[in-house]
Amino acid sequence: MSLQTPVCVVVGVGAGNGAAFARRFTTAGYRVALLSRSGQVTRQLAAELDGARAYDCDVTDAASVERTFGAIRSELGEVDVLIHNPGSGVWGNVEDITPGDFEASWKTNALGGLLVAQQVIPVMKKNRRGSIVFIGATASRRGGAKTAAFAPAKAAQKSLAESMARHLWPAGVHVALVLVDGVIDSPASRKRMPDKPESFFAQPSAIADQVFNLVQQKSSAWTFELEVRPFAEVW
Amino acid sequence: MSLQTPVCVVVGVGAGNGAAFARRFTTAGYRVALLSRSGQVTRQLAAELDGARAYDCDVTDAASVERTFGAIRSELGEVDVLIHNPGSGVWGNVEDITPGDFEASWKTNALGGLLVAQQVIPVMKKNRRGSIVFIGATASRRGGAKTAAFAPAKAAQKSLAESMARHLWPAGVHVALVLVDGVIDSPASRKRMPDKPESFFAQPSAIADQVFNLVQQKSSAWTFELEVRPFAEVW
Amino acid sequence: MSLQTPVCVVVGVGAGNGAAFARRFTTAGYRVALLSRSGQVTRQLAAELDGARAYDCDVTDAASVERTFGAIRSELGEVDVLIHNPGSGVWGNVEDITPGDFEASWKTNALGGLLVAQQVIPVMKKNRRGSIVFIGATASRRGGAKTAAFAPAKAAQKSLAESMARHLWPAGVHVALVLVDGVIDSPASRKRMPDKPESFFAQPSAIADQVFNLVQQKSSAWTFELEVRPFAEVW
Amino acid sequence: MSLQTPVCVVVGVGAGNGAAFARRFTTAGYRVALLSRSGQVTRQLAAELDGARAYDCDVTDAASVERTFGAIRSELGEVDVLIHNPGSGVWGNVEDITPGDFEASWKTNALGGLLVAQQVIPVMKKNRRGSIVFIGATASRRGGAKTAAFAPAKAAQKSLAESMARHLWPAGVHVALVLVDGVIDSPASRKRMPDKPESFFAQPSAIADQVFNLVQQKSSAWTFELEVRPFAEVW
Repeated sequence: MSLQTPVCVVVGVGAGNGAAFARRFTTAGYRVALLSRSGQVTRQLAAELDGARAYDCDVTDAASVERTFGAIRSELGEVDVLIHNPGSGVWGNVEDITPGDFEASWKTNALGGLLVAQQVIPVMKKNRRGSIVFIGATASRRGGAKTAAFAPAKAAQKSLAESMARHLWPAGVHVALVLVDGVIDSPASRKRMPDKPESFFAQPSAIADQVFNLVQQKSSAWTFELEVRPFAEVW
Repeated sequence: MSLQTPVCVVVGVGAGNGAAFARRFTTAGYRVALLSRSGQVTRQLAAELDGARAYDCDVTDAASVERTFGAIRSELGEVDVLIHNPGSGVWGNVEDITPGDFEASWKTNALGGLLVAQQVIPVMKKNRRGSIVFIGATASRRGGAKTAAFAPAKAAQKSLAESMARHLWPAGVHVALVLVDGVIDSPASRKRMPDKPESFFAQPSAIADQVFNLVQQKSSAWTFELEVRPFAEVW
Repeated sequence: MSLQTPVCVVVGVGAGNGAAFARRFTTAGYRVALLSRSGQVTRQLAAELDGARAYDCDVTDAASVERTFGAIRSELGEVDVLIHNPGSGVWGNVEDITPGDFEASWKTNALGGLLVAQQVIPVMKKNRRGSIVFIGATASRRGGAKTAAFAPAKAAQKSLAESMARHLWPAGVHVALVLVDGVIDSPASRKRMPDKPESFFAQPSAIADQVFNLVQQKSSAWTFELEVRPFAEVW
Repeated sequence: MSLQTPVCVVVGVGAGNGAAFARRFTTAGYRVALLSRSGQVTRQLAAELDGARAYDCDVTDAASVERTFGAIRSELGEVDVLIHNPGSGVWGNVEDITPGDFEASWKTNALGGLLVAQQVIPVMKKNRRGSIVFIGATASRRGGAKTAAFAPAKAAQKSLAESMARHLWPAGVHVALVLVDGVIDSPASRKRMPDKPESFFAQPSAIADQVFNLVQQKSSAWTFELEVRPFAEVW
């Protein structure tokens, strides 16, 4: 495979969205780097997807992030598309959560996003192209009673993404934020909510199509914030 | 041409966005109804585009709207996609504008949107499919000192679109709002701002691609509000 | 009573908020002009409140507004505080409401606000003081399925208020918007919801205290948007 | 001084807002606990203000917070009003800031807010009264190019405050957020911007009046988010 093959990094690959993003970009001809803390899902997926590779990475740890992106650069090449897809956080109100829960949610969603983005910005800026897509949640817009740890973490991620967009768009780097509103379809969510109909769930492959569309947008009509939700969702 | 050919109605067709939407949907195989108050641009465009037809319509007048949609239904068939693309409004602060300016902006942007939507909703609901796309502006998010007539009209349009989305999505009808942030490229805007570089302007064809993408979204990941702006825009 | 006595105009006086505003400003030493379409409540209230006067006015009619403010100026003096407190609107989704409902809601909430404001702005600007307070609703932030007429009207009112604030603050005129979230206590609302506890309702006198506080704010820390809701409200 | 004297804790006391809050609540009859990292300003202020006491506290350190609030409880009594007034953060775009800057801003603004709030919530809930006021910034609403560390920290603080409000209001505890838009007057800001007129600056005493008004609001018309800015501010 030539060095010209574009490279997509998916940070946070589980059975849901992350895997769907990896499939979508593989189909489009990208080599995909699959990052997760414990590499089980990623290694199996890497075996399936042409050109993909799994990397174990703790995105809340600067040294681990630096090592991983060094390996990606030497093994796959410079990054064209970075997708930050952190796992969801801890539920609970301000009395339920511990300061540790609060910090862990922030580290995964906000600090991790900064660490991985800082790895790819210099080359993207130099080349005046590239895309950085943050997968957020509508919780970023509103602190709910039961999201005392999760909502502030998502609000920080969103704010960071917006700051980056304002700074990097004029340099030709497309930073975007996808707000997923609703429950993502997966074996786990089906098991948790066995009575919900098909229409209740957001399909990862449908979300992946929209992430891919963002990356394809012409620069005279770029989107920063994109919300997606199932048609039957009450919002 | 068979009755199965899908039909797209573009309300408000000038040389910019409206024409680009018409071209995009014609390319995709739609028959397009081109609506404008004075039919000059629309008739010329209808002559160019395969299957398109021009209709003179004052969207702020219920009787004119009813007549026009009756003609569309009998000549082209039921409407699959409705795009409300009202012309931009009057500029001025609260002391500059007259109550007449204020009313005219609202009629075009808000009342007109209601009148055309009410024409297509019954059949779309019955068939559980169809798309209604409102072309808005970021002025809808914020009343600026100099947009005392325009911003309230766009805010009302946005609010109506959101109300419709919450009501119609569960019935299978996709209502969406595209917020265009920036100056749309056209001979007129180039003449008004001769010193601006190419990168300053939003290209109608690029916006049209995004409107078409909305209509193609799978129903498990629909977007309501979509913002688009040129990469070089300061926001 | 001397011409120096400050004057407050309350536009839209029913048994709830409007009456409470009138009482609060009367207590603070203002002469209050009480405006309503049919003058029943206002005339009774004017008889109770020291220095108050009732005026019949249709705020959606420019001639009626001009006549009324001419009378206020000659009978009470120039206006120091203007409170726009339009009655609530029509409920219903996009299929329920008529274009007439949509227009009537907009006329009361948005056009009426412009008409009354334009009456007082010139003198307030000249004197570099005065307050214009719009009583809005949280519906202005969000188009709900069942507020297809009401929400767009409130969104337009809010946008107009914000445009006015940005234009008039630097000239020393304080424009503000109070978003009331919840059901206002009144005999009518108690009858409609007989099972709700006391804590469910927003008390007009408590809201009036906050409107008065706005008018008293020092100009180095002015508020534009102020939301108030009962502590027990779910939001 | 009786144990019935109400107690106000100001977290983050410098020469600007924090001192003004302390003066305002002292005037209103509160005993005020003045918290800062290095106790210089606070000790001098405590000597001036009747009943006030200075405490050295690192609000980003759980043990320090616990020790400090233990001392406050035994020396002044249970807390009636808690004001979280963190110092402002690091400026810079995503390329300028380090992960350390990003973390420090978040610790002061978000984690620190959680730690101090968790100290007072149990007793406030039990007594069904008390106020927790977060001093935020309009940066919380929008990630600017140059606020890559500050805006996400303020967004997290705001989201936490909103989550707490939704959870604690129904229990009778008033959580509010004051968004200060503009530059706060202080010897330091005057030195930094020597050419700005008086009207440019937000006066701490005027902001303190509004914080005090929040604490006085009747529970049938509570405010969550309160924005204040100088009348001459461009926004």
